[in-house]
Amino acid sequence: MKTDVQIAQEAKMLPISQVAEKLGINEDNLIHYGKYKAKVSLNLMEELKDREDGKLVLVTAISPTPAGEGKTTTNIGLSMGLNKIGKTAITAIREPSLGPSFGIKGGAAGGGYAQVVPMEDINLHFTGDFHAITTAHNLISALLDNHIHQGNQLGIDPRRIVWKRVLDMNDRALRNIVVGLGGKPNGVPREDGFDITVASEIMAIFCLAKDLEDLKKRVGDIIVAYKFDGSPVFARDLKAEGAVALIMKDAMSPNLVQTLENTPAIIHGGPFANIAHGCNSLIATQMSLKLAEYTITEAGFGADLGAEKFFDIKARFGGLKPDATVIVATVRALKHHGGATKEELGTENLDQLAKGFENLEKHIENVNKFGVPAVVAINRFPTDTEAELDYVLNRCKELGAEAVLSEIWAKGGDGGIEMAEAVVKVCETKESNFKPIYDVEDSIKTKIEKIAKEIYGADGVDFTKKCQKEIANIEKLGFDKMPICMAKTQYSFSDDPTLLGRPSNFRITVRDIRLSKGAGFLVALTGDIMTMPGLPKVPAANNIDILPSGEIIGLF
Amino acid sequence: MKTDVQIAQEAKMLPISQVAEKLGINEDNLIHYGKYKAKVSLNLMEELKDREDGKLVLVTAISPTPAGEGKTTTNIGLSMGLNKIGKTAITAIREPSLGPSFGIKGGAAGGGYAQVVPMEDINLHFTGDFHAITTAHNLISALLDNHIHQGNQLGIDPRRIVWKRVLDMNDRALRNIVVGLGGKPNGVPREDGFDITVASEIMAIFCLAKDLEDLKKRVGDIIVAYKFDGSPVFARDLKAEGAVALIMKDAMSPNLVQTLENTPAIIHGGPFANIAHGCNSLIATQMSLKLAEYTITEAGFGADLGAEKFFDIKARFGGLKPDATVIVATVRALKHHGGATKEELGTENLDQLAKGFENLEKHIENVNKFGVPAVVAINRFPTDTEAELDYVLNRCKELGAEAVLSEIWAKGGDGGIEMAEAVVKVCETKESNFKPIYDVEDSIKTKIEKIAKEIYGADGVDFTKKCQKEIANIEKLGFDKMPICMAKTQYSFSDDPTLLGRPSNFRITVRDIRLSKGAGFLVALTGDIMTMPGLPKVPAANNIDILPSGEIIGLF
Repeated sequence: MKTDVQIAQEAKMLPISQVAEKLGINEDNLIHYGKYKAKVSLNLMEELKDREDGKLVLVTAISPTPAGEGKTTTNIGLSMGLNKIGKTAITAIREPSLGPSFGIKGGAAGGGYAQVVPMEDINLHFTGDFHAITTAHNLISALLDNHIHQGNQLGIDPRRIVWKRVLDMNDRALRNIVVGLGGKPNGVPREDGFDITVASEIMAIFCLAKDLEDLKKRVGDIIVAYKFDGSPVFARDLKAEGAVALIMKDAMSPNLVQTLENTPAIIHGGPFANIAHGCNSLIATQMSLKLAEYTITEAGFGADLGAEKFFDIKARFGGLKPDATVIVATVRALKHHGGATKEELGTENLDQLAKGFENLEKHIENVNKFGVPAVVAINRFPTDTEAELDYVLNRCKELGAEAVLSEIWAKGGDGGIEMAEAVVKVCETKESNFKPIYDVEDSIKTKIEKIAKEIYGADGVDFTKKCQKEIANIEKLGFDKMPICMAKTQYSFSDDPTLLGRPSNFRITVRDIRLSKGAGFLVALTGDIMTMPGLPKVPAANNIDILPSGEIIGLF
Repeated sequence: MKTDVQIAQEAKMLPISQVAEKLGINEDNLIHYGKYKAKVSLNLMEELKDREDGKLVLVTAISPTPAGEGKTTTNIGLSMGLNKIGKTAITAIREPSLGPSFGIKGGAAGGGYAQVVPMEDINLHFTGDFHAITTAHNLISALLDNHIHQGNQLGIDPRRIVWKRVLDMNDRALRNIVVGLGGKPNGVPREDGFDITVASEIMAIFCLAKDLEDLKKRVGDIIVAYKFDGSPVFARDLKAEGAVALIMKDAMSPNLVQTLENTPAIIHGGPFANIAHGCNSLIATQMSLKLAEYTITEAGFGADLGAEKFFDIKARFGGLKPDATVIVATVRALKHHGGATKEELGTENLDQLAKGFENLEKHIENVNKFGVPAVVAINRFPTDTEAELDYVLNRCKELGAEAVLSEIWAKGGDGGIEMAEAVVKVCETKESNFKPIYDVEDSIKTKIEKIAKEIYGADGVDFTKKCQKEIANIEKLGFDKMPICMAKTQYSFSDDPTLLGRPSNFRITVRDIRLSKGAGFLVALTGDIMTMPGLPKVPAANNIDILPSGEIIGLF
């Protein structure tokens, strides 16, 4: 069996101009990055502003398991399947982070015969967007420490700096550091740390901003620290936002590449899915809606986190109207939710499947609560039995959801035709009545409780003393009327990663609230969130190489 | 009077394919980065390997002064002047570092009517080469700390790690830090620090490597630390070089842009000129030699540092044969060397000029010692008097050097015709007998003494106790047969920046020797070298902005 990178390197790519031409994008609006990658100028949006939007389909999944669901692969495969049945469709997904490529083997550009290419470029520097974010973020850090060093006119409390530095690298040694050592010429000592670039608030802003001016405004709104008097210090106070906007000017334009079947893919932005909203850029989604009949987009983790944030944050900010949601599941993953051990996953077991199906059932219910029709895509594995597949398909139908089998990993677009037809049918026949699950004008506690009860199925929410104090502080500052970004384990509806399936009789504990004033949301933390990964004992980097022939090995 | 950025933004750029076409580079060998930037594929070198090299001209300068000499501007202007008189010529210069753009106002892409464009791109992310170096460098750091964290099988002494981290940012707070804090899951605490990216040994390697395989080998040779038993730890021991090569694969191809007059410019690489050799990449120079009749290249600081390293390190490693050297000087700068105060620079003073001329005289002598004919280019200022200009021109001629006036800043290529004609005359009539000033097989002390006595005019060299110990250690390791990279103040021939003109009766003190085993040279430190700049009280970033119209302000 061929590896992903072998399949990708055998791809017959079209020059990107030809991919663009199929969408009606002319040369003037392309900014080339080599032969197979291009940025699409934002001028195009002005030209197309009166064109009607195409259909918007969100691909999400059941609660993730080690068995793997194939969400990005399904996303890419669905767009290829739609193309197969004569619809113009674009897969609009997230850019991978470079750093993790050197940690654990495995890229983030799909798999099998449903990949986006050139996959090695997409997984590495791509068009430099993340490097721009790293630079912009660290410029604010440098301006902040320089301000303190040069006399601290603003009265910044060095113990209350909330703006860390970032690097696109898995580097645990940078999590907790002390900077400014070495005496007077070398700054003021203080505790600090690095996050990975995708955790930067600038990434979240980049993915929610309407244009460069909006980005500039939002960057100015970032709270970087607090003063000795307790009032917030904004990036604006450091006069950082103009320089940040200049650094980000090229990055703002969405990136156009192609699938293995030469259909268009727009890959742009990729914020963390816990402390941020985990969706590709709003600009990319909006551009895609103007260009294709179907835009297939994604969100991080399972539907309780990804879809909820897509609906309550991104769609709300962007005025998006999702037409359908595809929930990806596998028989193996459902059995895992039903208690199957790793060894049992390949053996038919309808009891485990029935128990695990409850996880999918709750996700279907949740999507319906947002008023968006659901299609379930069962990503088929060779070990799945007919009885198991029938069980899942029938149960979905009983719940009123379309359900189809998908074989896009093995067969590419041909394996996604049935799924594509189901999506088209739903989009053409079922009306979407999308509405967010809460009102931003609700109190912070009410918003969090609505998410916990309605989406997670919790009995209620406990707020720690620290959290209650922070909520009071945010209310005092007048920043409480923003959407909530939940940082919760992705493995369970609850905040306990071991409670699989559809847990009940549980409460959620919110330990802290953080202000992402620039991005425009409040992050509710239910546990410790790792914002800087580490490398494993044997990092993937050890086996990565590029041979004199140009062949790349060990990357995926 | 127009600012540099105004002149640059008014430039009528040609599509980069047209610039390439004039050099005979076809589309297949171009990797586009937008409309006006492209990388040139290294495949071209294979195609052109039997073509005869063009002439190689190094542009260097007198010892730098606050009055400014205009070395890069002259380099660009000379290439434009050569184009004016019907010669194909390429300016092959260094890539600017992004970080400093946000510190002190002023870019590094020439000035006036002798600039390379698009200057805002060149001064910012350009084609991402420096971001790749930052990533590659920090991956080695992450692998190193991870190795120690995961059990330290190699027995690395955390007190003897010589591989710092890097960022392309002026950020003094990162000069001296402690990493690995926060307990067991977060690594092993140790002292560390960040340099600016251009100070990375990977930058030096990038600029000296013959190809990607050579880069991989040299990266493997980097000494990152020492073990508890005192033996060196190489990047190879961390299995880092394959991943680094993959990260650097695109960066290796030289960048093609254009001057304000649409003539070709190849801008690639830019290592520090003190702890490294301060020249553009060898690959870029070699490519340019195949493409044009004249390649105009540069080296950092004055000729005592830049030209010496160009000759003794880059030309030696690359087998280059420089045909001529242009030494840039201004009347103002010479008077500064002759003791003129800032206020006196604009007033005729032949005594100060005569005294300051000694600096230029010594640089001319030095260039001749390398066997390379010298042309002196006087970058003309409005305050220069005829008597002053005549004095310099006549004195140069007495020394056997061609000398011409240049007005490229104000007039572009037209202002460089006389200079171009002088360079052609020298290249066509004077034979170059280039030879390095020392033999790499000489002892470390002998090599340093030869540079100090022959080039600086010192009476001798003192080595501190610490340095002598380090020399003994390097000899024991068997790494002493490498060229020397002098890290000395650029303002004086001596190691005292206040000794202007042509000092005599002085000795050089070498305080430390550092091994750049990967780059392939030994760094001799004569004083404290700042490898991470800081931001000033009012950083340029505060006034930088990009307007909704796309107009950039405050950058230069």
